[in-house]
Parts: sequence; C-alpha cells; structure tokens
Amino acid sequence: MDIYQKALKLHSDHQGKIEVKSKVRVRNREELSLAYSPGVAEPCREIEKNPEKIYQYTARGNQVAVVSSGTAVLGLGDIGPKAALPVMEGKAVLFKEFANVDAFPLCVGTKEVDQIVEFVKLLEPTFAGINLEDISAPKCFEIEARLKEETEMAIFHDDQHGTAIVVLAAVINALKLVGKELDQIKIVVNGAGAAATAVSKLLLDAGAKNLIINDKIGILNSNNLDQYDSLRQDLIKRTNPDALSGGLKEAVKDADLFIGLSVGNILKAEMVEEMAADPLIFAMANPTPEIDPEIALKAGAAVIATGRSDYPNQINNVLAFPGVFRGALDVRASEISEGMKIAAAEAIAELAGDNLSSEYIIPDPFDQRVVPAVAFSVARNAVKNNLAQLDLNEEQLKNKIKKNLDKLKSK
Amino acid sequence: MDIYQKALKLHSDHQGKIEVKSKVRVRNREELSLAYSPGVAEPCREIEKNPEKIYQYTARGNQVAVVSSGTAVLGLGDIGPKAALPVMEGKAVLFKEFANVDAFPLCVGTKEVDQIVEFVKLLEPTFAGINLEDISAPKCFEIEARLKEETEMAIFHDDQHGTAIVVLAAVINALKLVGKELDQIKIVVNGAGAAATAVSKLLLDAGAKNLIINDKIGILNSNNLDQYDSLRQDLIKRTNPDALSGGLKEAVKDADLFIGLSVGNILKAEMVEEMAADPLIFAMANPTPEIDPEIALKAGAAVIATGRSDYPNQINNVLAFPGVFRGALDVRASEISEGMKIAAAEAIAELAGDNLSSEYIIPDPFDQRVVPAVAFSVARNAVKNNLAQLDLNEEQLKNKIKKNLDKLKSK
Repeated sequence: MDIYQKALKLHSDHQGKIEVKSKVRVRNREELSLAYSPGVAEPCREIEKNPEKIYQYTARGNQVAVVSSGTAVLGLGDIGPKAALPVMEGKAVLFKEFANVDAFPLCVGTKEVDQIVEFVKLLEPTFAGINLEDISAPKCFEIEARLKEETEMAIFHDDQHGTAIVVLAAVINALKLVGKELDQIKIVVNGAGAAATAVSKLLLDAGAKNLIINDKIGILNSNNLDQYDSLRQDLIKRTNPDALSGGLKEAVKDADLFIGLSVGNILKAEMVEEMAADPLIFAMANPTPEIDPEIALKAGAAVIATGRSDYPNQINNVLAFPGVFRGALDVRASEISEGMKIAAAEAIAELAGDNLSSEYIIPDPFDQRVVPAVAFSVARNAVKNNLAQLDLNEEQLKNKIKKNLDKLKSK
Repeated sequence: MDIYQKALKLHSDHQGKIEVKSKVRVRNREELSLAYSPGVAEPCREIEKNPEKIYQYTARGNQVAVVSSGTAVLGLGDIGPKAALPVMEGKAVLFKEFANVDAFPLCVGTKEVDQIVEFVKLLEPTFAGINLEDISAPKCFEIEARLKEETEMAIFHDDQHGTAIVVLAAVINALKLVGKELDQIKIVVNGAGAAATAVSKLLLDAGAKNLIINDKIGILNSNNLDQYDSLRQDLIKRTNPDALSGGLKEAVKDADLFIGLSVGNILKAEMVEEMAADPLIFAMANPTPEIDPEIALKAGAAVIATGRSDYPNQINNVLAFPGVFRGALDVRASEISEGMKIAAAEAIAELAGDNLSSEYIIPDPFDQRVVPAVAFSVARNAVKNNLAQLDLNEEQLKNKIKKNLDKLKSK
C-alpha cells in the first residue's frame, strides 16, 4: 500500500480521528447527580456570579476551535467544508497529541466573510482560542482582522502565522551560519498569498529592512498596489525600499534570501547564481519546490529549506502552533500578537542553536523540547506585554506548562 | 460535603468534564504523514468526489452538537451561555457514557432566533445531529421548526422531546396498571412551556383525544389563543374538545391523568379527590412537585411520577436522548420524527412491562437494556418511514447498534 491507501485505511478503520471523551464517570445515581442535575447547578451559579470561574469549572480554558470554510485546503484548493473535515480533524489530533490542547474541528457551510465572522464570534462562550485554517486569501485577512478586533479570544490563522513563525526561526539560524544580519540583507518573498503575506510581515516586524514581494504580476510596488486588498496594501507599502520593478529575475539579483511560497520550478539556477554570496533558498511550494534542492546547491546555495519531510530543514507548522496555543491558553492571552509570534520563532531557533549546520537550522517536529520552549516563550511575552489575564512569573509559567503537558504523557 | 460542594470539587478537579481525544497516534513521521499531510489529502479527495464518504472517513456521522443560549437552564433560568457551559458539558458526558455518541457543547453568545438558526445551519458539514438544550420558549419552538425545515441534520430539542418521550412511556404503562386506554381518558397538562407543549403534542400524536392544557391564564381555549405564538396556537386548537374554561380546578375535575410541568404545590388534595377513579398524577416540577406524593397518595392517586430521583418513577430524560440519537445516527436519519419519538417511548415502556407496579412504570436510567432498545426502535421506525439514508434490516440494525455500544464497554 502507498501512503494514500494507508491513510484511507487509517481514516476508515476509526471513522475519523477524534472523539469527545468524558473526564468523569457516570455509572450510578450519585455520579449522575454530580456531573449533571442537580449538582451541576452549583458550578453554573458560581460562573454566573463570576464569569472568570469558567476557567476553573469548565474545559473552556483549554478549548480551541479549528474553523475552516474548506476554500484553500493543502494543495487541494476549494474542496468545500465537508471534504476539508479530515484535515481539520488531523489538526485537532496534532493539537492534542503535541500540546494537550482540546481542539474541535468546525467546518462551516459558507464562504462569506460576514457569516464566518458572526459564526466565530458566537463561539466565544465556549472557546478560549480560534485556529483559522485553510481559508482562502484575501478573505482570511479580513476575517482574522475583524475577529481580533471584535473578540477577546486568541485568534490565529495557522496557514499564515504558523508558517511565518517557523520561517523566521529558520531564517534566524540560517543567517547565523552565513554571518549576516536580518536588518542588512535583501529578501525576496515569491508569492503574495496568505502564508507569503504573513511571512513578509513577520520578517519586517522582526527587523528586516529590505524585503521585496514578487507575485504573478511582478514585483509589488506603488504602481500595482491597487491590485490588492487594503490589508495587503498596508504591507506592500512597507516593502521594496528601492522601488524595484520587473519580475522574479530582477527581484532576486543580489538578494541574500529567497523565500518561495508559490509554485514549483519557478526559480532557475542562473537566478541563484546572480544572488549575493552564500544565498539562502527557502523553496516551500508543495509537492514540487520552487527549485530542486540539488540544483540550488550546485548553483551555490548555502542553506536550503523546503516544505517536504524528505529533505533537510522542513518548514513544518507543527513546530509552532501547538506551543503557541499552549502558551497563550496557559496565561489566558486575549490575542496572539506579533511579539508573541517572534518570541515563538526565537524559541524554536534557539533549540537548534547548539548543533547548527546547513542541514539543521530548525529542530525536528518530534523533538520533545519544542512545545514547552515555544509555550514558555509565548506565554512570557504575553505576560510582559499585558496581553495575558494571568500574571505568572517565569517559574509559575514553566510549572503550569509542564503540568499541562505531563497530563499527556500519563495517558 | 453536600452534593453541591462535591459537584464543585468534581468540576474543579478536572477543569471541565470533557476532552477531545485522538483516536490515532502521531509519534513519528510516518504516523504524522497518515493522520495529516500529505496522506490526509486522500480522504479529502474521496469525500470531494462523493460526499457520502464523510461517514466513512470522518467522525461526523457520530457527532452531535449540544447547542444552548443558556436562557432556560435547569431551574436556574436565563443565566447566559458561559454559566450554562457546565450543563452542556454534562450533557455531552451523558451522550458519550450512555450511548457512545460524540457530543460537543456549543454555548452561543446570542439570544436571537435568526442568529442561532444561522449558526446551527453552518454546523451541518461537521455534525450529523443537533441537540438543542435549555433555550427559552417560545424561541425554542421557532428555532427547532426552522432548523428541521432548513437542514438535513437530526434536530432534537431535548427539554421538549426527551421529556415527552419519557412521559409517554410512563403513561403507557400507568394506563396498563389501571386498565384504561389513551384514546378514552381525560388528560390535563398543567403548564404551557417547552416541555408541556411537547408532551401535549406527543400524547395527541400517540392517540389521546381529550387533552386540556391549563396555564397561568387558565384553561387554554379559543378565547385566549392569541396569547400564544403561532406554533402553540396550532397545538392549542387540537386540545380541549369540550371547550372548557376556568382554571386548574375546573380542568382536573373527572380527569384520569394530571401532568404537571409547572410550579410546586399547585395541585391540591381536594382537586385529586375530584378526579376520575384511579387517577394518575405526574407532578414533575423541580425541586418541589405540583403535589407532595404522600398527599397525592392519601387523596387516592393510583400512580405517581415525579422529576425527582428520591421518589419512584422519576421522569428522567436520560432514558430517551442517548438511545434516540444512537438510533438516528446509526441509520443516518435526516430528522427525528413524531413517529420515531413514539417508537422510543414504546421501547422504554416495554422494558418495564414484565415487572410493572405502581412504583415501577419506567426502567431505571442505569438499566443497560434501555439504550439499545430505544436505539433499535427509533432506527427501525426511521427506516420504515423512509427517513433514513441507510436501509438496514432488523438484524443489521441490532448488530450496528451493538457494535457502537460495545466500543464503549471496551474502554
């Protein structure tokens, strides 16, 4: 059986990958009277008196909804909410298995921004966090922006920010290897979709000064700004300080870092040869990267990262989102800020730091140190910047995160 | 510790009563590639080609959302969606522990009919069934009616129909004890809220001919019809064939069956004495019944049922909803019809049949026979009336239900 047949069998054997399990037993009248009527009235009354008690008496504080319209699923595109459900269940599995977060998939039967926003807002009494997933651009930008504005939940569009965090982590370490600084290099981001947009924004927020976005219509500049929604216009204005025009060829000349979130085989060997010394190539199109890693190496690339698990340096979101939410939930963060994302990237980068090489710029997704380190860094940043309801010190943070992750091991 | 302190401790010890558990392991790259990318793409493609495959490859077919606005919670009233969450988690626990149904609580941040209806409609790609819970009347009637019309999910407002099913089951057996027939007795339902409405409707659909509803404004008849919403007007028109007027005293004279879903101590001993021979008294107000069972007995009641677990014959919804949904899900029913509800009541009644006495007209909620019997009866009725997507014969039905319930025991 190939991997696809094996996956079908796995999904069919279990009829889906998640279940809702009870943490309490109900096998006699007394147990029934505690978990349900009449005993349950007491936690209800306590929460009615003080809504903060919802964290003590319910599962809300550990619950994240994985919300998708199924309009931009993996490499499959707009396959609709029903066909997207296996992916969202998979995401819920990763949340639980990596970070002991109780995530529930909600595939919604609409593509409309207003309807999705209204839907998610109604979830606030039940969930502390929202992981938006596989929602097509540009709708994903508006949905996320409005939800951040209009709710107190921790909102995170993983396709954007999960990728951005792991890319930033890998960039931090790749720059160490070649002895360059983020604020002094020229960066080309190829693509202007959800992930490319978030990567560009996070790199700029982390200190990059010279970043050019190249899209199907060429290098983005003041002349083609009006092709984009207002949220991306704000971003584009922060890019391309030398007002370059042209296409990918012009963009990558003398660039230190190429980041592809676009289509396969678009970056040619001769373009790599025109880049600055020791160029860094992040070719993340799946399944075919923007340039074959072998060809990039021959053309002089110093470090190569891809989206694939069969090459070194896989940019895998699972390095980020479990720890990001573990950290955000454990301090009851009201948002997931750019600062918290940068803190997550720094934590990931630091873990690879001791053994850095061109084939190891980010840790393995199964490295057990990743989730606690990311969670701690994110939580500490939230506390420091008054984005957390709980004001825990570093030791308290470490203990709380450890306690929540240990529950997972004991199963 | 009293029961309320014990319940608080239970809720606090576990921080809520449910968790989302993975049915698959993700401990290495291969397992990750099957549960998530790239393997997960294959079930997605299969569902995109044939949406029916969602039942094979995802958990949707076993998933029920417990949806509440928190506006009519137990005896607590309109405590809001956050304070209602412990009850909805409790319901999810009962769904799982009694019938292996994966139920997830969704407490929504609105009281508006339109918003709740739109919210639930968007859940259709994810859930096969919807259990509406603790939503105040008359909004609950319109919400349920619209959802039944506008979706293909199995919709069930448990406060109405769970109660109605168990009451009908108890009535069937109580009538056997006193040798009377449903279509020949006079019934008084005291109260016109959600449960009272559904009980009245189900009794009429099951064959009752002479049923009178008495509410705060007195006996409902053509003179006070306009005090009610259109859905209840339709019901009221089917009641009170002798066009009685007055109050409870006038209503219960010569009645064979009193069903109270109202307030404590409203039925007086002298009213019971004016009822027909061998009167049946269902006094279900909580915590104080419409009449103290001791007083009712002395006044001549032949059978007494209450909502309390410390008296015989407790009308407990947990006898109904787990089996109703197990049966509906196992044949992929597109609704839960009046016929399916009557079938559920008949199954419950039959289980008590061998040992019938005035103190045992319905089985114990922990009687292991209840859920499979109700599920089978409901599923068979759905198949017979073309409300099921799966056309299973009786043996197939029994095997499927047994298989799904056995999974529970093996844990």
